[in-house]
Amino acid sequence: MNAPLPLQPTPEAAARPATVVCLSVPFDLKKIFGGLDDARLVLRDPEEIERPEDVTAALCWNPADDAFDRFPNIRLAASIAAGVDGILACPSLPAGAVVTRVRDDAQADLMAGYAAFAVLWHHRRMGDYVANQAARKWVRSFRPAAPAAVPVGVLGYGLMGRAVARAVAALGFPVIAAARSGGEAMPGVEIVSGPGAIETVAARAKILVNVLPLTAETRDVLNADLFAKMPEGAALVQIGRGEHMVEDDFLAALDAGRIGSATLDVFRQEPLPENHPFWTHPRIMMTPHKASDTSREETIRQLGLALDQLEAGLRPDAAVDREAGY
Amino acid sequence: MNAPLPLQPTPEAAARPATVVCLSVPFDLKKIFGGLDDARLVLRDPEEIERPEDVTAALCWNPADDAFDRFPNIRLAASIAAGVDGILACPSLPAGAVVTRVRDDAQADLMAGYAAFAVLWHHRRMGDYVANQAARKWVRSFRPAAPAAVPVGVLGYGLMGRAVARAVAALGFPVIAAARSGGEAMPGVEIVSGPGAIETVAARAKILVNVLPLTAETRDVLNADLFAKMPEGAALVQIGRGEHMVEDDFLAALDAGRIGSATLDVFRQEPLPENHPFWTHPRIMMTPHKASDTSREETIRQLGLALDQLEAGLRPDAAVDREAGY
Repeated sequence: MNAPLPLQPTPEAAARPATVVCLSVPFDLKKIFGGLDDARLVLRDPEEIERPEDVTAALCWNPADDAFDRFPNIRLAASIAAGVDGILACPSLPAGAVVTRVRDDAQADLMAGYAAFAVLWHHRRMGDYVANQAARKWVRSFRPAAPAAVPVGVLGYGLMGRAVARAVAALGFPVIAAARSGGEAMPGVEIVSGPGAIETVAARAKILVNVLPLTAETRDVLNADLFAKMPEGAALVQIGRGEHMVEDDFLAALDAGRIGSATLDVFRQEPLPENHPFWTHPRIMMTPHKASDTSREETIRQLGLALDQLEAGLRPDAAVDREAGY
Repeated sequence: MNAPLPLQPTPEAAARPATVVCLSVPFDLKKIFGGLDDARLVLRDPEEIERPEDVTAALCWNPADDAFDRFPNIRLAASIAAGVDGILACPSLPAGAVVTRVRDDAQADLMAGYAAFAVLWHHRRMGDYVANQAARKWVRSFRPAAPAAVPVGVLGYGLMGRAVARAVAALGFPVIAAARSGGEAMPGVEIVSGPGAIETVAARAKILVNVLPLTAETRDVLNADLFAKMPEGAALVQIGRGEHMVEDDFLAALDAGRIGSATLDVFRQEPLPENHPFWTHPRIMMTPHKASDTSREETIRQLGLALDQLEAGLRPDAAVDREAGY
């Protein structure tokens, strides 16, 4: 464990190792996190488990629809990262299970750095310099606007959104953040909340960064209606979830010049199919869902902490509101 | 004028327009800044001036060695940007002339943004993603270190260095700044000053950003001795002046793996010659001396202010210390 636990181990905790089942369609979680389990918890694949009714905890990323059917006594379904939509959408998730996400300051720093990088990529037209270098062209004609004249919108104002807003504001850009219900004020950051907040921010931002959580309300939020409200030629930085974006609407807005350029890290289908038009679009820079990374150690540390808290009869710090979806 | 002047115009100022001669080998300053002069000052090329002994002010960028010979009564030699080394090195510069630089917060924001971009480019290996996109490769294997584990060194702690340090620290990187003589403390920034400060910072930084002014002391400071002190595989961001770097030493350090990658914006010869090895080196990203831009309006505004201050018998706010070189 990297940090001291706030609780004394209960007798149950002392009796561990607890068995944690790995439930994921796309990833081999036992392999990814293997060796990081310790005397206090062990990771097992479903087929390795002889008495599934004894298992009370799962480590998850996009579990199969029926993943929980064999494990009726799961009390804790822990995500390996910040997103929990794949777990919440799983039809077999036991109604009473606590769902946790990883809350990781280092991960927020990584997300903020990625967003800052993407904002600067568009503000400074860095892609043109990359292309000019390849062509050995010394072209100095582009003059960037002063950052103070380039409003940057941030959709979402949770742990990730606040880190993004802070980093972008430190670069001299005025930030307008759409928050569901207000939030901590920061220098250089204007918060817009309530109904219509997303549209208000999109209408004012020359560069728009999406870090919303994926919920029933935010699915497909990056659609033709929203793009029509954006200033002509604005840039889009998509680091939320693939399901936020209606990809056909986005391509139409890009080709019409309504969206000037975009950085995309998340996609409706991942890995992005090889014949997808995003790969080769000259005004798209894309990365393979790497805007942030949770440290594997931190994921396991927080899983251990959540187990301890549950065993002590407490609600884990990292628990999400299953109704709200984050 | 964009901002109110702090002084009442003197009778001399009221009698303007003052004639300001444009002295630059590489740039057509009259063309670049033309139309921004106003009722209070007019820009003229040397050959347009009939009574050179009446001219007391020059707007300069790398003036010819003999540029000032025809203008013996120049009292003000104003740089168009933050650098003044080309003016101070000019043999014909009158001994008594005040030399000014542009001090521009927007320019500092641009410089800070460029530095932040370059730091993230190296930290996140963004160049690999650009190449992978071109090859339609979905490769997720690289895991970046937490920013908190990546010390970033900043050489220079003036207006530019402080802006760079603030921006990089806001992204979660610990910053170590080399300052000639201390300086304003900021959260997340450790200041190292006095003899050996540059070497101390270089030895600790995984990413090293150069924003030193060019002086007799700092010329050639990025040389084999300094590179030998850097951690193996560190990245270099060169946004000072071309003459800071011994280019052959740098290429040797890069090819030996001592320097892992670099972002270069300034070069000993600009434009960079078409056959220069920097263009095609796979671990160099380069831009054509565009890390920051002074706004043309701000340059002319500050020139007018310096004229007013001189006429009022004051030392211009933007005057540099000719001995110190910045």
